[in-house]
Amino acid sequence: MAKDFVVGVDVGGQTTKIGVVDTRGEVLSQTIIRSDIFGDDAAAYITALAAAIKENIAQAGKTLDEIRGIGVGAPNGNYYTGEVAFAPNLAWAANKAVPFARMLSEALGGEMKVILTNDANAAAVGEMTYGAARGMKDFIMITLGTGVGSGIVVGGNVLYGHDGFAGELGHVTVVRNNGRTCGCGRQGCLEAYCSAIGISRTAREWLECTDEPSSLRDLENITSKDIYDAAKAGDKLALRLFDYTGTILGRAFADFIAFSAPEAIVLFGGLARAKEFLYEPMKKAMNESVLKIWRDKVEIVFSSLKESDAAILGASALAW
Amino acid sequence: MAKDFVVGVDVGGQTTKIGVVDTRGEVLSQTIIRSDIFGDDAAAYITALAAAIKENIAQAGKTLDEIRGIGVGAPNGNYYTGEVAFAPNLAWAANKAVPFARMLSEALGGEMKVILTNDANAAAVGEMTYGAARGMKDFIMITLGTGVGSGIVVGGNVLYGHDGFAGELGHVTVVRNNGRTCGCGRQGCLEAYCSAIGISRTAREWLECTDEPSSLRDLENITSKDIYDAAKAGDKLALRLFDYTGTILGRAFADFIAFSAPEAIVLFGGLARAKEFLYEPMKKAMNESVLKIWRDKVEIVFSSLKESDAAILGASALAW
Repeated sequence: MAKDFVVGVDVGGQTTKIGVVDTRGEVLSQTIIRSDIFGDDAAAYITALAAAIKENIAQAGKTLDEIRGIGVGAPNGNYYTGEVAFAPNLAWAANKAVPFARMLSEALGGEMKVILTNDANAAAVGEMTYGAARGMKDFIMITLGTGVGSGIVVGGNVLYGHDGFAGELGHVTVVRNNGRTCGCGRQGCLEAYCSAIGISRTAREWLECTDEPSSLRDLENITSKDIYDAAKAGDKLALRLFDYTGTILGRAFADFIAFSAPEAIVLFGGLARAKEFLYEPMKKAMNESVLKIWRDKVEIVFSSLKESDAAILGASALAW
Repeated sequence: MAKDFVVGVDVGGQTTKIGVVDTRGEVLSQTIIRSDIFGDDAAAYITALAAAIKENIAQAGKTLDEIRGIGVGAPNGNYYTGEVAFAPNLAWAANKAVPFARMLSEALGGEMKVILTNDANAAAVGEMTYGAARGMKDFIMITLGTGVGSGIVVGGNVLYGHDGFAGELGHVTVVRNNGRTCGCGRQGCLEAYCSAIGISRTAREWLECTDEPSSLRDLENITSKDIYDAAKAGDKLALRLFDYTGTILGRAFADFIAFSAPEAIVLFGGLARAKEFLYEPMKKAMNESVLKIWRDKVEIVFSSLKESDAAILGASALAW
């Protein structure tokens, strides 16, 4: 039987999204299960996931025989080992290495190909297969969400490195002295400044250190969405927050380019939705900071995948 | 006829080194021609080079038929295009793109395979084929010479990127504010601090800004060799210069690891000869600064190639 379909699984801290995808990148059916109700019992989670996958395939009017493989994007997912290891936001994998790919394949009868990688790498494969990076062989995917993730594509392949963990560009140092403490324990990481959480930290710092008027002062908790809305309404401090964040990103991109000489930087994630405010300062800082041979040569593009489908599409693309 | 030999050509600003190499990495014969007596006449240089290559092959008791190919390492050499373009230290390629590989192949009868890349990439291939990186598939070569060059190997292949210029790690920013101006025009580049010239600049700065006693004060011009000799003799300032330089390198390595997750960082070049002073601070800074998953996992190793042969071996290895 022709195997013309794949399944994409996007594992998040709270929910897991599952979808059957065809060769053109159409999501035929979608379902969601909880990731956070299994305690530390990885086997129970995998059993529930396998059941949901089977149900989803049936929903799409297909059978297991028509599925070429299952692609999984998961935090701390390792392509080489198929493990999800020490992922702080997944209770069933927080303190151990879970052989996710093998367990899921077995739960589906033992014959199914399961390919696993981390979320940002999955996003990179998704953009290359269905999205803004179609036709590109060398690009860097940057996901600007709660944290900053990355997937590096070299010659059409994701760069996994010696151990499968390559592409942690959220954790390069952008502030060497007195940098903010990052969730990873290091100081001055890109993620501590340019994630959704990072820009909110900058907002709180600026509001505390100055008396500049801003509509953000009235809020108890400031989210990146609040800053976006304030910028939309013309709030000057909010606008400068995006300038500052975009400038740090652009300078970091200049260093990334010196590494892998990509055709483009592709952006995805909640904070990337603020592209009208981020794009210009990002591009300016990148081109001012990059080596001359790359000035005005590397594009910054935004994901073209429909947001609700993107995570599933990215994961599913691994299975082709 | 079995093609069991290759020729390595190392193009430098002043001289070009040529050698015939066998499969085990033995250099059978070596010769040198000047690179700097041809003005802007690239054709005249290539003619002289082709003649020297033929002579060198005869010297080794071989014929052109026994040569599998010619590998060339040259400043600003581009693997994809075979060009040497806008290389400031080569008068015949300073203001134009010279189709080096094609011209050399034609000068040798038109059938010879000529593979060209930049010096640091050639060094990486040399280490992988004959040297300290044998058996490694993922490593980063850093050349610490007058400047800082790099060659990045991913899955056993040199990373060339979209345009062939990937791996300019001497030009990532290590000092964001008030960084030194680098030869490339940027500010705060790794090369401005951690090359042979960089460490000499640090020495002059420290001697000017303090009155700390040091044997280096007696010298008119301070070279990296002078600093090495002073450190050997126990000069405290010279020893701290290596600590400082090694620390900057180690921190930069931590960021490089976040990119490509290499098995090792391999060092080569004049300044790398000071390994007794650089190794400990470099390793300490790298492991303190790197993400936890890589702590104490990535090795720093030094080139194991005989220095007089290394450049030829590196270039020659491209031709296998």
